[in-house]
Amino acid sequence: MYEDDENQAMKKTVVLLSGGIDSTVLLHDYVHQYGRERIRALAFDYGQRSSKELSFAYLNALAVGVPYHAANLSSLGKILCGNALTDRKIPIPDGRGDEEGMKKATVPNRNMVLLSIGLAHAIASGCDTVTYGAHKGGFDLDTRPEFIAAMDQVARLCDWNPLEIQCPYIDLSKADVIKKGIDLGVNYAKTWSCYADQDLHCGRCSACCKRILSFKEAGVKDPTLYADPGYALA
Amino acid sequence: MYEDDENQAMKKTVVLLSGGIDSTVLLHDYVHQYGRERIRALAFDYGQRSSKELSFAYLNALAVGVPYHAANLSSLGKILCGNALTDRKIPIPDGRGDEEGMKKATVPNRNMVLLSIGLAHAIASGCDTVTYGAHKGGFDLDTRPEFIAAMDQVARLCDWNPLEIQCPYIDLSKADVIKKGIDLGVNYAKTWSCYADQDLHCGRCSACCKRILSFKEAGVKDPTLYADPGYALA
Repeated sequence: MYEDDENQAMKKTVVLLSGGIDSTVLLHDYVHQYGRERIRALAFDYGQRSSKELSFAYLNALAVGVPYHAANLSSLGKILCGNALTDRKIPIPDGRGDEEGMKKATVPNRNMVLLSIGLAHAIASGCDTVTYGAHKGGFDLDTRPEFIAAMDQVARLCDWNPLEIQCPYIDLSKADVIKKGIDLGVNYAKTWSCYADQDLHCGRCSACCKRILSFKEAGVKDPTLYADPGYALA
Repeated sequence: MYEDDENQAMKKTVVLLSGGIDSTVLLHDYVHQYGRERIRALAFDYGQRSSKELSFAYLNALAVGVPYHAANLSSLGKILCGNALTDRKIPIPDGRGDEEGMKKATVPNRNMVLLSIGLAHAIASGCDTVTYGAHKGGFDLDTRPEFIAAMDQVARLCDWNPLEIQCPYIDLSKADVIKKGIDLGVNYAKTWSCYADQDLHCGRCSACCKRILSFKEAGVKDPTLYADPGYALA
C-alpha cells in the first residue's frame, strides 16, 4: 500500500497503458470521468521491438498527472520465442498478409500476462479495478468477450478483496475510440502504434494499417508521419 | 515453436517449478508418468528474497533431464511493494504469527502471474498443459479450487488452441505430497522452502514451519538443517 491510499474507500483504477491509441484514449477517459487521484497508469516493457510506445505512454501519464510505473518484463522475450514483436530474427509481417503471417505478430498470451500483473499492481497499490483498451475487431484472441469475462471471474477470486476487470471499449470499433479521443482532447501525434522500430511509423505492419484505416473510417485527420503512407490504402 | 516440437500431436506439459517440496515432487511425478520428453520446467525469479530455491529448481530439472528456463521477473519487485518476499525493508513474519502478519509474506496475485507466463511459455514452446503444485491447506487465496477452475477456463480461451491448467495435488495435504515424493525417489535435501535468505532454512518463517510440521505429519525423516529447529514444534 502506498501511504496516500490508506483508508481509501472509493474505487481506484489501474489503467494498462501501451502508448497506442486505445489505451491513451482510455487513460484520458478515466481521468475525465473519475478524477486523476483515482487513477494510476501501468505500462510494460515486455521486450517488444519498438520501445517508442513506452515513451509515449509516459508522456501521456505525465500530461494527465497520474502516477506511472513501467513493469520491466523484457527478459520474457527469451521464453516467448517465435513471434516478431519480441524476436528480432523474425521479420515484422505486412499488415495485408494472411492470417498465419499475422499470428507471427502476436505475443503468446500477452493480455493475460499484462492483466495479471496489472491486478498484482492494483492489490499492492490499494486499487480494486484494472481497465484496458481492447476494442471490437481486434485480431488477438485474448480480446474476445468470453476471455474478458473469464479474466474478470479470476479477478474476483485472486485476493482477499474481489477485484474487477473493466474493458469499456469492447463494443466500439477502433474508429469509434478515435472519435471518443477527439472529444477528450487526445493528441494523437503523441501516440505510437507501429510494431517496427524506425523513426517514423512504417505504414505497413498490421498495427499501422489498422491505424491508417481507422482514422479514415472515423473521418478524423491522422497527424501521423508514415514511411509508406500509401500501402494500407492501396 | 522449438523445432523438435513440430507435428507434436500428444500432450506436452510445462511444470511450474519453484525449488520447494510441492513443485519438485510434481516434476518427478510428471516425468515418471509421461516421460521426460513431454515435460519442460519453468522457474521464476520474481525478486523473491531467497534465490536458493532457484538453484534447487535448476538442480532438479537437471536431475530428471528436462529443458529448464527461468523467467526473470525481478523488476516486478518495484511494482509489488509492501510484501516481505520482495521488499527487503519488511521483516519476514514468524510462521506462528497472526493472519495479518502472514499476509505480509504473500506476493500479490503471484499464482495468476506465474500461470499466465507459464501459459505463454507453453504456447511458445508447443505445449498444451501447465501444471503447478498447489495443495490442500495452502494459505494463499489463489490456491483455492474456484480460483484454479477460473484459471483453467481462461486457459481454454487464451490462444487459438485451448490449453489446460492442471493442479493434481489440490486434494492432498503437504504431508501427502511428501509421502508421494518418497515413492518417486525425491531427495528433499535438494529442495528449499525458506523465505529468508540465510545459509540454512530459518525454521521460523511460515514456509519453514509448514515444512517441519508436514514432515512430522508424514512420518518422513526431514533431512533439512534449520537455524532454529525447535520453534515450529514448540
